[in-house]
Parts: sequence; structure tokens; C-alpha cells
Amino acid sequence: MNIPTEKNLKRVIIIGAGFAGLQVAKKLRRDKYQVILIDKNNYHTFQPLLYQVATAGLEPDSIAHSIRNIIKKTKNFFFRLANVHYINTNKRKIYTNIGNIFYDYLIIATGSVTNYFGNKNIKLNALPMKSIPEALNLRSLILQDFESALLTNKIKEKKKLMTFVIVGGGPTGVELAGALAEMKKYVIPNDYPNLDHNYMKIHLLQASTRLLDGMSIKSAEHAYKSLKSLGVSIWLNCLVKDYNGEVISMDKNKYIETSNVIWAAGVKGALIKGFLTKDMKKNRLLVNSYLRTIRYKNIFAIGDIAFVKENENYPNGHPMTAPPAIQQGNYLVNNFNKLLFDNSKIMKPFIYNNFGSMATIGRNKAVCDFSFIKLKGFLAWIIWMFVHLVSLVGFRNRVIALTNWIIQYFHYNKSVRLIIRPFYRKKYLKSRF
Amino acid sequence: MNIPTEKNLKRVIIIGAGFAGLQVAKKLRRDKYQVILIDKNNYHTFQPLLYQVATAGLEPDSIAHSIRNIIKKTKNFFFRLANVHYINTNKRKIYTNIGNIFYDYLIIATGSVTNYFGNKNIKLNALPMKSIPEALNLRSLILQDFESALLTNKIKEKKKLMTFVIVGGGPTGVELAGALAEMKKYVIPNDYPNLDHNYMKIHLLQASTRLLDGMSIKSAEHAYKSLKSLGVSIWLNCLVKDYNGEVISMDKNKYIETSNVIWAAGVKGALIKGFLTKDMKKNRLLVNSYLRTIRYKNIFAIGDIAFVKENENYPNGHPMTAPPAIQQGNYLVNNFNKLLFDNSKIMKPFIYNNFGSMATIGRNKAVCDFSFIKLKGFLAWIIWMFVHLVSLVGFRNRVIALTNWIIQYFHYNKSVRLIIRPFYRKKYLKSRF
Repeated sequence: MNIPTEKNLKRVIIIGAGFAGLQVAKKLRRDKYQVILIDKNNYHTFQPLLYQVATAGLEPDSIAHSIRNIIKKTKNFFFRLANVHYINTNKRKIYTNIGNIFYDYLIIATGSVTNYFGNKNIKLNALPMKSIPEALNLRSLILQDFESALLTNKIKEKKKLMTFVIVGGGPTGVELAGALAEMKKYVIPNDYPNLDHNYMKIHLLQASTRLLDGMSIKSAEHAYKSLKSLGVSIWLNCLVKDYNGEVISMDKNKYIETSNVIWAAGVKGALIKGFLTKDMKKNRLLVNSYLRTIRYKNIFAIGDIAFVKENENYPNGHPMTAPPAIQQGNYLVNNFNKLLFDNSKIMKPFIYNNFGSMATIGRNKAVCDFSFIKLKGFLAWIIWMFVHLVSLVGFRNRVIALTNWIIQYFHYNKSVRLIIRPFYRKKYLKSRF
Repeated sequence: MNIPTEKNLKRVIIIGAGFAGLQVAKKLRRDKYQVILIDKNNYHTFQPLLYQVATAGLEPDSIAHSIRNIIKKTKNFFFRLANVHYINTNKRKIYTNIGNIFYDYLIIATGSVTNYFGNKNIKLNALPMKSIPEALNLRSLILQDFESALLTNKIKEKKKLMTFVIVGGGPTGVELAGALAEMKKYVIPNDYPNLDHNYMKIHLLQASTRLLDGMSIKSAEHAYKSLKSLGVSIWLNCLVKDYNGEVISMDKNKYIETSNVIWAAGVKGALIKGFLTKDMKKNRLLVNSYLRTIRYKNIFAIGDIAFVKENENYPNGHPMTAPPAIQQGNYLVNNFNKLLFDNSKIMKPFIYNNFGSMATIGRNKAVCDFSFIKLKGFLAWIIWMFVHLVSLVGFRNRVIALTNWIIQYFHYNKSVRLIIRPFYRKKYLKSRF
């Protein structure tokens, strides 16, 4: 890895530059620690807006930010672009594609990956949306589908290409369904005047009894009504059984013919090899209320990958979203920085402050659940935009995203409808592009 | 292709949505013609700014514009995303990957491709920069090189990774060399504090006696001096013989060890099969001064692909740049539109108005040659930016590009240093990423 050993500094390795890892990497005192940040990308991804990349609303570059640009020229900080394969907890070493390295402290912030719940067919045929390349694939596929639908006279084929099934009625699924419904309304009739846009169908499948499980019933009902009014078919209490690339089958012998299944039904911790099964829970690493792993005093976990045990308020673990990740990162880095001055001071346990949650449905439509007030409609939409805008990393990204949103608001358009690197997956498309 | 035949309308097929083809497609009268535009991409590329995508200055989405967005919902207009394989001039049919189609008139505006002058090794190992995916590959490669250089202690290896050889001293080569030199000055020391940025070398190789062959000697000399002062090594009268991916060899037994050769040494017409050798000149289609091919009355060629014969001012053909392409497109579409009203009217031959040319070198540095005045320095740079900005297609793209430029001007930064889809080419990189 070509990183020098500093005798007077303890080495902290952070794996993952997501919301949690980035907080620690940015704030850790470099006069006391040598800080090494490792990520498989050279950029931080603002995952809450991936759906806008997939639906041609934002360019990928405005929701990604170069890690080297976030943490500039500073002493005792090293970023390495690498994949971590294995952690040897006895030797205190991590093994990566660019070499092995010793740690004094290890902070695991690897986040989560798409959870297909073991269904191989779905993994093979459905499209995930957890990374920028995946969102770009989705954008290409959606646009290629319309180009292909133009070419065929077979109504059945046309409909299959223009049917989009989103599995998972959480914020991601709701936001994606809303964005696709707006494409149907504002973009497709202009871009494809020779295509009957009524063939375009958007289905949102949810396993539980309502949308937005993590939010209030009021917000869920508002989202339901809003999506319905945009023409989205919503299937509640619906379990997906299989998807062969042509037909998605659900329980109760229901099925939909479609070339496009987007899988937003769940995530699971992105584990690294080297831990025992009893160190994990629900595919996440068990940590105590100081975010320290149970077995190893010098290993910590934060963000989606961490499962805080014995937590009354969150017996199933904290939500796998940005706010707990950011708070855990901040909590941990404060402890690391403080311990230097007062080793004996007893740390307070981590407590997650849930300020609320929100989801956008479309133009002027969103829902916000705050502890003190619940909002919907235009005001909620403005708040949603403001919160996402200020959360974006980097001044440039905020300006570019805001500019895009303003232009789109007045033009009723999706600006970046470009098939820049065509996505080949299905036989049907392969033969055509 | 699923395009209906209109009995009362002549069908015009335009191949290529570059500067030339787009002019025709936008302006052709749809009450008199059925217009079909075919391109291998669903977007128009603003090629003069590709070098800024390659050097992390602009996101690809701001120099590309969706063709369906440029030409919105209009009657008798059809865009098809397709590759044209062959033209059957007897049957008046084009053959594509999405089917065959008959034309009444054919306008060939396929532009140009990179010219390796028959050298297979160079084609295999050097990097071109004629399309957005190619520019993105280049961006990834440059950034990956620095990540790799960090990992090795072998000085020779480090230097090889950090050496960039640009072949071709035209505007593209000059602009790319300037942008890389600015990365060395402003970006690399901040992003890679542990890397000696003096190892980064930029070489610009030019076969002729001076840079910017198409511009004035004064401008060429200014560009030479400016690049020199930015630390670029300029090799004039230098012929490239070979490149094996490790070492580029020139005449007079000279060579440079480098992992990165960027080929900006020339372009050639992007010909489609179906024409006779005697219909071509210098890999371009021969046309008369009305831009009509010699042999076929219903086939026209415009832009880079067209070679206007018996042209006193341009005996070697018009420059293969945007201005002649735009003017030829405009000229041809006017003839097409006018002939309807006055078939007997004798057409005027096409005459290219050369308003001048320009090239930027870096911050506050550019050269402009106009017929009435020659400029250099800050004013030339402002004019260069203004002309490129207003030439970009689409309001959004102009706003986003301007925003990027303003932010970069004050931050001395390259905003989009993201390795979004890593580019694997060389053994060295393959083993690491």
C-alpha cells in the first residue's frame, strides 16, 4: 500500500467512504492518529438521489464527489482506492487487492448491498439501484426500451418493454415510481410521438400492508393517493416469487409481463470475511452501545453495517439510512478524539436522534414526518429539496443540482436522457443495439 | 424500422446527428419531406469540448444533448438509434442493425473517425478522444494512473504512469496538453500530497514544423510559449513510429517511456460501405459544389465526410471542423427547402466563410485568429469561452458548463475527478483495479 509507519501515531483504518465513514475520516485528529480511508470508488455517492440519475433528472457527477477533493492535502491522511477481501482480526491486518496492512484501530463502514433474499433468478434478471453505475445502467435501459418499443409492431412486445415493475414500497420505490410516472406524463409524449404512451405502465409492489413502512400512516396514505393519481398501479400485500426476465410472478397466482423489474425491496450489510457468525446479526456486525464490536476491542462498526445490540428503541437495528450513519460517524469520531485528553472519562452510549423522515413523489408532492409536525404537498416538497440540497457534498454539486431542478421545474423535462454507455442485458436488446 | 410511407412526401434520410446533420434535420421542411435522422447515439456530441471531459473539467452530460430533446414532437420527423452498415445506391436503400429502408434523398453526415494511419500497434495501445465514452475512458485512465503511481516505490514505474504523451499539435492536442499541465499545477499537489508531482510530464508531439498548423504563425508561437511556460515538452518535426503500450518511439531513434499515449494526430472520413473508390478522395466522399455526390443525384454529403472537388481555396478539402459542417448543413437544407418553390432557379455553389479559428491553452490563455484581427491572452480566452458556450446545444448545458467554469476559475480545481466506470486496458492496471 506504500504507507509509512509512524511510530508516535496509532493507525486508524476506515473502510468505506459513505455517510458514516466520511464523517470519521474528515474529523479524526491527525495530530494523534494516522488515518487511512479505503473505498472501492474514488468518490462518495449521495445515495438518496440515485433514483434521479436513473430517471435522467440529474447527471451522475452532481451526486458523486471525489474523496480526494473532500479531504484535501492534510498530514497523516491516506486515501486508497481498493477492495478489502479479508480481515485477520488476530494479526490485526486487512487484506486488499493492493496489498495488506496492519491497523491499530479498524472502523468498518462498508454500508449495505442489495438484498435479493436468496433468489438467484431475481438477482440475475432484476436491476438494482445501489450505486452510480447501476443507476446509469437503469437510465440507459429505460431509454433503450423506448427506442426498442418504437421498432416493433407487436403490441405485446411493446407493452412488455414499456412496463416497469418496482419491487419495494419504501422511499426509494416510491420516489422511483413517481419519477417514472412523470416521465410518462411529460417526457414520453414529446420524445416518442409515434408511441402510444398509454402502453407505459408503472407497477409498485409492496410486501406489507402499506407503503413507506418507516413513516406515519398519514404520509403513507398520502403517498398512495398521489402515486395513484399519477397512474401508478400499487400492489400491497404482494410477495414476489420469481422473475425470469419476461414475467414477474407473485403469490396468489398473479403475474405481470415486463422486461424491467427494478429491485428496491431491501438491503443487507456489506460484510467482509473474517468475522464469526456469532459476531453478526441479520447480516450486520453486532456492536455495543459504544459502536465497538463484541469480540474485538480495536474494531468498530458504524452505519448500515452496524447492528447496535440491546437497543430498546431499535430492537431490529437502526434504519439503514443516511441519518443514523452520519450520527454514528460523528459519535465515534468524537470518542476517538476525546479519549486522547481524558482516557478515564466514561463515554456516553450512542443514542440515535430521529429527526424524521421524508419521501418525494413528484412535482410539488412530498411527505415529511418530523417529530413535531407532519407535512405533505408543496411545502413538504420544498423542504425535501432543501434538505437534500444542503446534504449534497460540495458547493459545485449543490449549484449544479439546484440548476437542474430549477430548469426541470419550468421545462417539465428530464434533462439528461442520454444513453452514454448502452446497457446490454437481455437477449431482446442485445439483438438490437 | 417501423416508419410509415407517405405517398405525397419525398423521404429524406440523414445519417449522422453531428454539426452538419443536425442543421438539416432541424430545418428541413416537414410539410414537404418526410425526415428520418439516424445516429448511432441518442445524443449530439459537442466535440470541441471533449478534452474538458477527459480532464475532469466538465461532466459528459453538459456537452451532450438528447437528439429527441433537440427536435421535439414534430410531424413527419423520425429519429432512429441505429448503425448503418451499407448503402445500396441502386435500390436506394440503407441497411442497418434495425432493418432496411428506402430513401428518395440521402444526406450523408457521418463525420470522421480517428486516423491511426494504418499503425495497428498505435490503434491497440494509444487512446483516442473522438467520442464521449472515449473521453470518459481517458478521464478514468488518468485518475487511475495516479492511484497506481501512489502504490509503487519504483521510480521508473511511477514516472511511466505519470508521463502523458499527446500526439498531434492541432487545437485538440494543444488544449489537452494545457489542461493536463494545469492538473499538474493545481490539482495533483492537493490530491496526491505523497506523490512528487514533478514526476508528471506532459509531452506534445507534432509532425510538422509548428503547432496549430491551421492558424497563424503568431498564434502558433504564442501557444508554443504558453505551453512551454506551463511545463509542457514540445517536440516539433517529430514522427511517431510505434507504441507498444510501454514505450513510444519516434524517428531519429528517440523514445519516451509512458503508459499513456493520447492520439490526436488526425481524423479520416467515417465512410459507409456501398461507394466506389473513384467516388472518394482522401477517405471522404467526393461532392460537387452543390454538395451532391458525383455519381448519384439523390445522395449528398456534408461535414467532415464531404470532399468538395474543384475548390480553389481548399484544394485538400475543407477543414474537418465544426464551422464548415454547420455551414454546409445550412447551405444544403436551404437548397432542399427552396427547390420546392422554384425548381428551375439555379443554385449558387457552396462557399465556406472562414470566420477564423481559435484554441485555448489554459487559464486566461487562448489564441484567436479572425480575418480582421488576431488576439491572444485573456481577451482571446474570454472570446473562446463565449463562442463555445453559445455553441453548446441546449439552455441547460450552457448554464451547467458556465457554472462549472466559474467555479473552477475561482477554485483552481477540476470538479469531476470521478472514476465512475474504471477503464481497463493495460496489464498493469488490470492487476490493480
